Amino acid sequence: MSPTQPPAFADIEDASARIAGQAVVTPLIENAALNAQVGARVLLKCETLQVSGSFKFRGAYNRISRFSEDEKARGVVAYSSGNHAQGVAAAAARVGTRALIVMPSDCPAVKVEGVKRLGGEVRLYDRWRESREAIGQEIARERGAVLVPPFDDPFVMAGQGTAGLEMARQAEALGVAFDLVCAPASGGGLVGGLALAMAALSPGTEAWAAEPADYDDHARSLAAGERVGHAPDPPPSFCDALMAPKPGEVTWPVNSRLLKGAVSATDAEVAEAMRLAFRTLKLVVEPGGACALACLLNGRLPAEGRTVGLVLSGGNVDPALFARVIEGGDA
Amino acid sequence: MSPTQPPAFADIEDASARIAGQAVVTPLIENAALNAQVGARVLLKCETLQVSGSFKFRGAYNRISRFSEDEKARGVVAYSSGNHAQGVAAAAARVGTRALIVMPSDCPAVKVEGVKRLGGEVRLYDRWRESREAIGQEIARERGAVLVPPFDDPFVMAGQGTAGLEMARQAEALGVAFDLVCAPASGGGLVGGLALAMAALSPGTEAWAAEPADYDDHARSLAAGERVGHAPDPPPSFCDALMAPKPGEVTWPVNSRLLKGAVSATDAEVAEAMRLAFRTLKLVVEPGGACALACLLNGRLPAEGRTVGLVLSGGNVDPALFARVIEGGDA
Repeated sequence: MSPTQPPAFADIEDASARIAGQAVVTPLIENAALNAQVGARVLLKCETLQVSGSFKFRGAYNRISRFSEDEKARGVVAYSSGNHAQGVAAAAARVGTRALIVMPSDCPAVKVEGVKRLGGEVRLYDRWRESREAIGQEIARERGAVLVPPFDDPFVMAGQGTAGLEMARQAEALGVAFDLVCAPASGGGLVGGLALAMAALSPGTEAWAAEPADYDDHARSLAAGERVGHAPDPPPSFCDALMAPKPGEVTWPVNSRLLKGAVSATDAEVAEAMRLAFRTLKLVVEPGGACALACLLNGRLPAEGRTVGLVLSGGNVDPALFARVIEGGDA
Repeated sequence: MSPTQPPAFADIEDASARIAGQAVVTPLIENAALNAQVGARVLLKCETLQVSGSFKFRGAYNRISRFSEDEKARGVVAYSSGNHAQGVAAAAARVGTRALIVMPSDCPAVKVEGVKRLGGEVRLYDRWRESREAIGQEIARERGAVLVPPFDDPFVMAGQGTAGLEMARQAEALGVAFDLVCAPASGGGLVGGLALAMAALSPGTEAWAAEPADYDDHARSLAAGERVGHAPDPPPSFCDALMAPKPGEVTWPVNSRLLKGAVSATDAEVAEAMRLAFRTLKLVVEPGGACALACLLNGRLPAEGRTVGLVLSGGNVDPALFARVIEGGDA
């Protein structure tokens, strides 16, 4: 694949074969109480249960496992708000190469610790004053390490798409056809991979992106017909994993063609989705990971009476924040 | 089946057919970080994801769905520390009969609310001064309602055994053979059903009961060769779901014959298991539901280098308690 061209469905199938035995085939679960509450049949793809606690391991492993011996000797560098960081660290450990991760200094402690526990090295940066892309590229140059970006890479995006491929096959095994699927979007790698998988395996299924209310760059870009950013200078989002400034270069050609739409949720709605996940689903979901569920619960997704597939994309949340949310706090 | 004879494996198969499409076939999950931490291959049966948030729906539905029209008209009464309560309420709602549940006044609020949300009526009692069995039987007599006990009923026990039947089949599908399995034990219905399923489908597999340290009546009974209680007047257990005074009459003939042993965990060890479930597994597990995991982590289960199947039996925990535990508290 060209490094700037989006993957095709065949690349997702290829990624699926490559991650087999390394990534978890995460369960697609259903909860009768949730179905009754929203008046829809909802199937939840639990990427919270994936290696490293989010879907990011899929893409990272699909990319890093293709390293040459020379690349393995030089190692990998990545910039990430935290979940890609852990996915890269986990994949690097399994492939047998070193990982250095550039992470924002305000990202959840659990994500920094996760990287370190997996043997990764961490370089913190100021999310508001420094460019993670520039730092990552500089380190890559200095060390000769291979930069693995969080979404603008066709192997990474194809890897994330394996979650969608599994969802389509799991639904088929259950005798279910999705009317729509929805996944959280930051750079758009996960939802783009999901859309590609559905277009190939379940072409009648709508694909939707879920975004934080102030970071709605996919909705704005779909409306504009081109890649544009969210409104300038938004406050930090509760969804620390979903703060990319605009859709990715590699992901946008797919998402602009295949997404039915993009919906959003406020911080308070995301907190309510996390509480429902705790109380009713018995799942630990981080704010960004609960964004698609929040867009179901707030009524923005056209779900009523339909069969809906949602990705719960990650569960890496600090205990103090989780405690505050389940006891009723918003953010 | 005679109401006082334990079920046979055929009764578990029959229960499995009966609950199909009503109960969730809960996932059997694996986590690489947990495997590495304990030096074993651990497969976790997530009954936290079951209807009503615990395995109890299995047994309750298997019993209540067999009610005659006359019995349905009279309704069901049950006594329960909370999970059987919700299982009975959920099953009664699906079968179309009324449920009245006798619950201890100190049981988690989430469990009382769960019963009410499912349409059940609640009668609270004092766990330390009143006999739930006597109250349940009295109400059954007054109303003509059918008493469905939490474990001393062959249909209930056969229903719980369907979790074991699924585990054996899911392991087979993964190409895995369990060296041992372990489930929390209160009256012993779940672990007994699990042991019956393993004896039939995976006869080389050891079955172990997990108990709270002060409520170790299965360990004592196995040592004594007869049903005996735990030490008198223990403090309340953190594991509110596992406080039965002694092994059940119906369950004991199975457990005395099939259990390899019973191990236990302290409140602090159970809290640590809940934290691991939160942090690493991204699962919400209640104290009693985490008891088998705690007995893995504390080293009491002979797991090293072996393939282990554990039941995470329930996830009905109050937000305030869960918050305290994940932030580092013991109980």
